[in-house]
Amino acid sequence: MAGNTFGTLFKLSTFGESHGEALGGIIDGCPAGIELDIDAIIQEMQRRKPGQSSIVTQRKEEDEVQFLSGLFEGKTTGTPIGFVIPNTNQKSDDYSHIKDTYRPSHADYVYEKKYGIRDYRGGGRSSARETASRVVAGAIAKQVIPDIKINAYVSAVGNIELNKTYQELDFSNIEKNAVRCPDEAMAARMETHIKEIKKQGDTVGGVVSCVIQNVPIGLGEPVFDKLHAELGKAMLSINAVKGFEYGSGFEGAKMKGSDHNDSFNNDGTTITNLSGGIQGGISNGMDIYFKVAFKPVATLLQKQVVLDNEGKLIEQHGKGRHDPCVVPRAVPIVEAMAALVLADFYLFSKLYK
Amino acid sequence: MAGNTFGTLFKLSTFGESHGEALGGIIDGCPAGIELDIDAIIQEMQRRKPGQSSIVTQRKEEDEVQFLSGLFEGKTTGTPIGFVIPNTNQKSDDYSHIKDTYRPSHADYVYEKKYGIRDYRGGGRSSARETASRVVAGAIAKQVIPDIKINAYVSAVGNIELNKTYQELDFSNIEKNAVRCPDEAMAARMETHIKEIKKQGDTVGGVVSCVIQNVPIGLGEPVFDKLHAELGKAMLSINAVKGFEYGSGFEGAKMKGSDHNDSFNNDGTTITNLSGGIQGGISNGMDIYFKVAFKPVATLLQKQVVLDNEGKLIEQHGKGRHDPCVVPRAVPIVEAMAALVLADFYLFSKLYK
Amino acid sequence: MAGNTFGTLFKLSTFGESHGEALGGIIDGCPAGIELDIDAIIQEMQRRKPGQSSIVTQRKEEDEVQFLSGLFEGKTTGTPIGFVIPNTNQKSDDYSHIKDTYRPSHADYVYEKKYGIRDYRGGGRSSARETASRVVAGAIAKQVIPDIKINAYVSAVGNIELNKTYQELDFSNIEKNAVRCPDEAMAARMETHIKEIKKQGDTVGGVVSCVIQNVPIGLGEPVFDKLHAELGKAMLSINAVKGFEYGSGFEGAKMKGSDHNDSFNNDGTTITNLSGGIQGGISNGMDIYFKVAFKPVATLLQKQVVLDNEGKLIEQHGKGRHDPCVVPRAVPIVEAMAALVLADFYLFSKLYK
Amino acid sequence: MAGNTFGTLFKLSTFGESHGEALGGIIDGCPAGIELDIDAIIQEMQRRKPGQSSIVTQRKEEDEVQFLSGLFEGKTTGTPIGFVIPNTNQKSDDYSHIKDTYRPSHADYVYEKKYGIRDYRGGGRSSARETASRVVAGAIAKQVIPDIKINAYVSAVGNIELNKTYQELDFSNIEKNAVRCPDEAMAARMETHIKEIKKQGDTVGGVVSCVIQNVPIGLGEPVFDKLHAELGKAMLSINAVKGFEYGSGFEGAKMKGSDHNDSFNNDGTTITNLSGGIQGGISNGMDIYFKVAFKPVATLLQKQVVLDNEGKLIEQHGKGRHDPCVVPRAVPIVEAMAALVLADFYLFSKLYK
Repeated sequence: MAGNTFGTLFKLSTFGESHGEALGGIIDGCPAGIELDIDAIIQEMQRRKPGQSSIVTQRKEEDEVQFLSGLFEGKTTGTPIGFVIPNTNQKSDDYSHIKDTYRPSHADYVYEKKYGIRDYRGGGRSSARETASRVVAGAIAKQVIPDIKINAYVSAVGNIELNKTYQELDFSNIEKNAVRCPDEAMAARMETHIKEIKKQGDTVGGVVSCVIQNVPIGLGEPVFDKLHAELGKAMLSINAVKGFEYGSGFEGAKMKGSDHNDSFNNDGTTITNLSGGIQGGISNGMDIYFKVAFKPVATLLQKQVVLDNEGKLIEQHGKGRHDPCVVPRAVPIVEAMAALVLADFYLFSKLYK
Repeated sequence: MAGNTFGTLFKLSTFGESHGEALGGIIDGCPAGIELDIDAIIQEMQRRKPGQSSIVTQRKEEDEVQFLSGLFEGKTTGTPIGFVIPNTNQKSDDYSHIKDTYRPSHADYVYEKKYGIRDYRGGGRSSARETASRVVAGAIAKQVIPDIKINAYVSAVGNIELNKTYQELDFSNIEKNAVRCPDEAMAARMETHIKEIKKQGDTVGGVVSCVIQNVPIGLGEPVFDKLHAELGKAMLSINAVKGFEYGSGFEGAKMKGSDHNDSFNNDGTTITNLSGGIQGGISNGMDIYFKVAFKPVATLLQKQVVLDNEGKLIEQHGKGRHDPCVVPRAVPIVEAMAALVLADFYLFSKLYK
Repeated sequence: MAGNTFGTLFKLSTFGESHGEALGGIIDGCPAGIELDIDAIIQEMQRRKPGQSSIVTQRKEEDEVQFLSGLFEGKTTGTPIGFVIPNTNQKSDDYSHIKDTYRPSHADYVYEKKYGIRDYRGGGRSSARETASRVVAGAIAKQVIPDIKINAYVSAVGNIELNKTYQELDFSNIEKNAVRCPDEAMAARMETHIKEIKKQGDTVGGVVSCVIQNVPIGLGEPVFDKLHAELGKAMLSINAVKGFEYGSGFEGAKMKGSDHNDSFNNDGTTITNLSGGIQGGISNGMDIYFKVAFKPVATLLQKQVVLDNEGKLIEQHGKGRHDPCVVPRAVPIVEAMAALVLADFYLFSKLYK
Repeated sequence: MAGNTFGTLFKLSTFGESHGEALGGIIDGCPAGIELDIDAIIQEMQRRKPGQSSIVTQRKEEDEVQFLSGLFEGKTTGTPIGFVIPNTNQKSDDYSHIKDTYRPSHADYVYEKKYGIRDYRGGGRSSARETASRVVAGAIAKQVIPDIKINAYVSAVGNIELNKTYQELDFSNIEKNAVRCPDEAMAARMETHIKEIKKQGDTVGGVVSCVIQNVPIGLGEPVFDKLHAELGKAMLSINAVKGFEYGSGFEGAKMKGSDHNDSFNNDGTTITNLSGGIQGGISNGMDIYFKVAFKPVATLLQKQVVLDNEGKLIEQHGKGRHDPCVVPRAVPIVEAMAALVLADFYLFSKLYK
């Protein structure tokens, strides 16, 4: 429960601080005999990597993953997959100014209070750099459930919202622009907006939508470990996330039952899908879709008032290389976490066969 | 992972179907020596109980809890607290019509597909009746963390939304009306709306808001078990929930960092609290607040098309005694789940002092 | 981790004190669709029950189990099986003399020190009465793995040791005598010995052996959760157990590798089986066999010096109805715990097919 | 449950095969603010390391541990401690002869059957090389519970048994000889015996005894997670272990209650300690002591009949650099596992303060 492990049967444990020697993790419970597509893993890491476009942070992190165990002649062996991602381009000096200060809306203050000690460099353990390990594991999880298709994309940047249903979109466009919005006109507007925000030394929030297709019926456990509850926890565990809704979401709360209920077709599919592919916590074979709200990045390249460890408020100018908007790089992370949840439930569902 | 246990150190496991012999559970990890206030537990159960007002289901369930272990001369002993809530007023005949049919937007179909067998009476295990056990445990959890104040209330019924911040409300009004909305004018409107909906044999969704005050700094674990991630999972595990947001939530995704960041006061508190009392997954001592979206109840007292187990679509008129709107009775459930999460993290925080 | 749950996929949580309202538990993870043989469960409880013969305690506990959930029309539904065993014949007055005293080699003292409070009646939670719940769950576990045969028997009472290998024994004799030793001559000697010990108001230890046959290859997990490590933990968790050995056990430590190694037959079976059916923590298809050492029951019907809660040593005469030797009644408990371990690993092995 | 994690609050997860890139692990739940004594960790690894004397394997493994996270300026930060131990001197060629064969009493055969694939080099994941990671974690665990003293030593090699109680021994002698037996005369005899066995290309089993002193009252949880049950599981999870007994152990099964009970002194200590420092699964403050039986190493430098993957039996001469007797190097492993168990329960015990 110390918070560094996710999943039960397909289980990821991560370690690593932003500016320590390395990040890494252990994937335990991966079935044996899977011929791992390493290129697919690298590709997911490229999607998350800093410096990939002009609208994300220009930090240069190579994010090269080294697998240390659990593979033999290219295949998984059923034993734990240990991996490390060395920290190669960290500039710890960039952070000496925050050694004794707590930045607003960062985790600096609570870590100090909770542990009495913190690795302040780059946010230490609270840095989103930890998500690199999640992306590695998620890319492997996807290979455990190859038939299930997971597509995430940016559906809002600040006030610029994509008002199309996912059925109106072509997911093959997602990777065609830096924002990862499959609607090209909206993508252009979002990109322009991020650049403006960046120029101001400010940041902006956004929304990532995710669609999971071709899900077998029966994934998810009743009561506490409902499929959408685990998806929700997975998403809320990503840095900067403030909200999660699936299916009809908050809009559904405004509806009447006679409008909201999804009538059956005679093959068990439903005509509408306000349920979002999940009934009573268990997948019903329809598409699962959900939205994840990200707050604006807290690190501003502006003057801000910070608190020091003697209780004084001082003005400080933010520095370093940071994302003006986190959602483009969050897309592969959302997919990775979804894949982890689904692989876990998929393995569990084999119990009942 | 079979989904019937919640929590790690303060751990609730539940059992029971809607129309079986009894519901019940085991609370494991409750500290020893707490003089349990049984009346407080009964009171919470009264708040959740059917039949408490004219706007909720008129089923008569006595919901009497019997404690079987873990208490000695009125005090907790540190051993597991076993309890049962007998099912006394169940009318199984009410459900014979659904034996071979799957109702839209219910769990009937997925349970059948997942397990190959289901107790169809009243939804069986998927019934919200299971939450009675959660309320028992939550009422005990509250006594483990007596200084922390948890207040939930109804903030929307259908399109009728309470547009006040929680600071503008008087929580002592929550129990003064059947809807559990602390704003009396709004409560009246909501109540009228529910009655109309009920008359139509229809149902309507709603939103429960929750505020947690006087939280010590340092609850929550970094990375996967962030405080808000566990709260989110807890809420999403409640029947009919479609969304969760905390602090600035989905609105926060529209904001700029310079507007969103919460500036410090020199005592470590913050001037604003868009963060919602949690930084990096760890409580910072400010108020925690969140919203939970509930879909409209799927059981309608209207004609609906249902699917039978031979793949035929047939028309069926819903019957039974059901809630036209679930949120008034969901208020104590939201509080109970919040209490379980907080008690768990509170105990965990003691380990590392 | 509060210690009241056993197993991961086939999971038993128990509650209940010796003289509280009831014992009971929840079995979570039992596959759906099993037509439970309730008579088989009752029969196992009869084997554990006090008062079944003249050499065990004459307490009259009816040990009637009531199933509250998880069954529908005689079959398991995949939802948790809740059950209670009411405490009907408890004479709490028998224990008032130990309210303020700690008996030697009992758990009285450590419970008091650990929790600051204890239900002193009959040992409370530390009573072996808790094992009734294990026997219920074990009897169900056996039905999850019907092909695997588990036979335990008494192989020693005090110094009277059965010096035959299990292959020389006829397991169908186990239930033919009160001691549960399949060798009738030895059983008679053991029975006489227990009666003598009882006359002295004394108690005596013993050994239970267990043989598990027809085990599929591949149960058990490498490294920490080795099959024999879980079996060992399971056995050591039974009241009064002081030792566990499997296969060649402590004798194996005296041997040379050239004598100890089990040579293969060409079908993968082995000529000898000093390994005890497990290699590297994983079943190899050969018979699993192990021994469990039980200390003499600590409650004597003699004068003993006890400690009171003011630090005074006082003489006290033991009273109540206790077993002079625990091993005859421990036989079904050993089998139950073995069944729990095997059912758990059996389910786990299905995940990775 | 995939078997690669040990502990709940002080939790070790390990990865790595004998001849892969590296071994390593993650220690999660280590309290913050401990100034780690790295030399003490290295020293423990030296005790486990191959090649340390003429009676152990002459493989040269440097066993250098690299810490990647969880430490900042020499202190633990409360975040997970990731570490790797590179495999530097592995000669995989040594193992090409076993690629298609299963050695007797090794895990080769069951891994192949369980997973359908195995890293055959040096036993892969089933190799005792994995215990290097346990020793790292155990050395840190010792620093979490600095007041508790753990001393293990060799008490038997084959038939040569040390017949002294631990009170008669001087633990400071343990490290003075290659066998790690604190009685020098016995150590000499054991060493001679091991050398003879080695000359024969044979191996021999042995026993490690362990004494834990200065344990606070109250460690261990009732019912399933008894302190001695966890210790037993921990020991049985070590490669080659066949048995575990604590306190009076198997000898206790022969005794009468009137001889076995430990009478109290008026300070709560006991005059005798046949209980082995644990009552009802909870430490009582007296010394904990137990014995662990190790079988002879299965790899012989002799001709043996092995099974190949086509079902043929063929003669093969063992080669490589192996221990003729595993117990001298097992001493630090037994201590490490004991430390892991105690640190876990120690942290848990803080819940009740």
